[in-house]
Amino acid sequence: MIIKAYGAHAGNLPLEPLDITRRAPGAHDVRIDIAYCGVCHSDLHQVRAEWAGTIYPCVPGHEIVGRVSAVGAQVSRHRVGDLVGVGCIVESCQHCAECDDGLENYCNHMVGTYNAPTPDAPGHTLGGYSQQIVVHERYVLRVRHPEAQLAAVAPLLCAGITTYSPLRHWKVGPGHKIGVVGIGGLGHMGIKIAHAMGAHVVAFTTSESKRAAAKALGAHEVVVSRNADEMAAHAQSLDFILNTVAAPHDLDAFFALLKRDGTMTLVGAPASPHPAPAVFNLIMKRRSLAGSMIGGIPETQEMLDFCAEHDIVADIEMIRADQINTAYDRMLKGDVKYRFVIDCASLAA
Amino acid sequence: MIIKAYGAHAGNLPLEPLDITRRAPGAHDVRIDIAYCGVCHSDLHQVRAEWAGTIYPCVPGHEIVGRVSAVGAQVSRHRVGDLVGVGCIVESCQHCAECDDGLENYCNHMVGTYNAPTPDAPGHTLGGYSQQIVVHERYVLRVRHPEAQLAAVAPLLCAGITTYSPLRHWKVGPGHKIGVVGIGGLGHMGIKIAHAMGAHVVAFTTSESKRAAAKALGAHEVVVSRNADEMAAHAQSLDFILNTVAAPHDLDAFFALLKRDGTMTLVGAPASPHPAPAVFNLIMKRRSLAGSMIGGIPETQEMLDFCAEHDIVADIEMIRADQINTAYDRMLKGDVKYRFVIDCASLAA
Ligand SMILES: [Zn+2]
Ligand SMILES: [Zn+2]
Ligand SMILES: [Zn+2]
Ligand SMILES: [Zn+2]
Repeated sequence: MIIKAYGAHAGNLPLEPLDITRRAPGAHDVRIDIAYCGVCHSDLHQVRAEWAGTIYPCVPGHEIVGRVSAVGAQVSRHRVGDLVGVGCIVESCQHCAECDDGLENYCNHMVGTYNAPTPDAPGHTLGGYSQQIVVHERYVLRVRHPEAQLAAVAPLLCAGITTYSPLRHWKVGPGHKIGVVGIGGLGHMGIKIAHAMGAHVVAFTTSESKRAAAKALGAHEVVVSRNADEMAAHAQSLDFILNTVAAPHDLDAFFALLKRDGTMTLVGAPASPHPAPAVFNLIMKRRSLAGSMIGGIPETQEMLDFCAEHDIVADIEMIRADQINTAYDRMLKGDVKYRFVIDCASLAA
Repeated sequence: MIIKAYGAHAGNLPLEPLDITRRAPGAHDVRIDIAYCGVCHSDLHQVRAEWAGTIYPCVPGHEIVGRVSAVGAQVSRHRVGDLVGVGCIVESCQHCAECDDGLENYCNHMVGTYNAPTPDAPGHTLGGYSQQIVVHERYVLRVRHPEAQLAAVAPLLCAGITTYSPLRHWKVGPGHKIGVVGIGGLGHMGIKIAHAMGAHVVAFTTSESKRAAAKALGAHEVVVSRNADEMAAHAQSLDFILNTVAAPHDLDAFFALLKRDGTMTLVGAPASPHPAPAVFNLIMKRRSLAGSMIGGIPETQEMLDFCAEHDIVADIEMIRADQINTAYDRMLKGDVKYRFVIDCASLAA
């Protein structure tokens, strides 16, 4: 069956309407009528060939929400009519240590929602900027938020889990003072989730103008990181830092804010490396620099349930599919509060 | 009382005999007749003013072993005649979270065994290249090795605890496959201790010639890190890496060998930073880069007891105090297996 999508034929071409096909649902497959798809920075990097290995035509999108419209004969977890989501993962090996631990995101054979090899036409996965998607039930998440919030739930599937997973893994909770660096698509979710986990949240931004917004998101304190005095006031006081900034920047200034045994976890991968961190800062207080990439399927479900329970959704700006190129340009300027979401009904137009 | 020592009057001058004084033991002090003092790379960096802030005259040495020759009225932990050791720490604030946790090494007011402010003459601490030292009992360790091993115990007080502490903190033990990078003063201790802890130990060296020596120290496997094929054979297989190399080097090649959630801990601080690590390597498998600095007093005692129980000492080459300048030059060339130790009896000559 041919469906409408939005994608690009080359890295230097704008996204445009495309006709694509989806496989007929197999025994364990779920077909989803996509209602909304969030717009992630990864989409832009991949479709514009800023990362290696983009295969065209490229249809981005891995913050997918919608309603189940068909299920295979052996599907047990989802039913037609369910509100569901799909994130960055649509397949994995299902038998390695990572898959066994429910951390399919770290499986060496993880299949990304777009730009990954698949037996389906055209030979690589096509993402959520489309009307439908067919996914193995294991990688389909249940959405328990009210349907009215559905568009704002979409970004939880990447931005939400990317921040939730490290906050949970490093056991952030009551009694902790933690930092969230960067107040964009990822950072704004990190602030909301860390706050809901019970931590004292300090937001770090380079922009004086974001102070009020960060507080509104749930930050207990806001620090403009260009201000050395403000930074120094938090020296050796943070248990954990979630650093969402992908642009290369000085990590040492943030290490100095960590307590002994504190960890700063990076969830953004810069195109060129950060300046080399001073080893001294790590050694002096047994600090760690870590990385974390999205999250596993069970913890993605846990995150969705946590967010539903705490009434957490993303702050979004809805766009039509034909506004995506402009939206990318605005994203690059940081001109979005805080996530664009495509209304996939606009694909039919 | 005036005693003999060996030190330097300036960074560009060789070490020479010096006369120094020690305070009379206070109520909580222990006076130690120093039998041997190990020679650490830090000694060389400090005395040659390669690190900032060297105060002269500088008497290095923080791998001190000897016998108690006097104790203050309120000393309860040590008696005259005991075999004891002193490492890198001779004082700390005793009331911060770090001191409370027995991690005086991370106390912001830790007083190093040399080159640190003190009320004693001449206003900064003087280290173990000397006949005696007077130290608060809290920072004096009991040595349970046979006296015949005493010289080879000295390096445990810095090289031993610097490697033991991270191995213990990151819970290295049976069932773990771990790496030790660098086979020098620190690395040779790391191999012995990790082996005794029950881990499968892979030693990494740049030098083909060190293969047999690394096996003799207890490495189960040895990898010449310049050989990409040998490195690749261990991809994603290590639980932990203890990296003892202070010279700037490519960290990425080692990250690739860590499993998911693996940590590489640096215990050497290079004068110039390592090349910036690729964030991708951290993010892809939730890996960590950490630092660790010596160890706390309780765990130093634990380490000494562990080493006594497992018959672990350093491999040493004994020198007279007047051979120290030559020994430094040989250390810089890596020409020592694996630690010089000064016979402090030679100071009387
Ligand atoms: Zn994403
Ligand atoms: Zn797998
Ligand atoms: Zn040392
Ligand atoms: Zn303290």
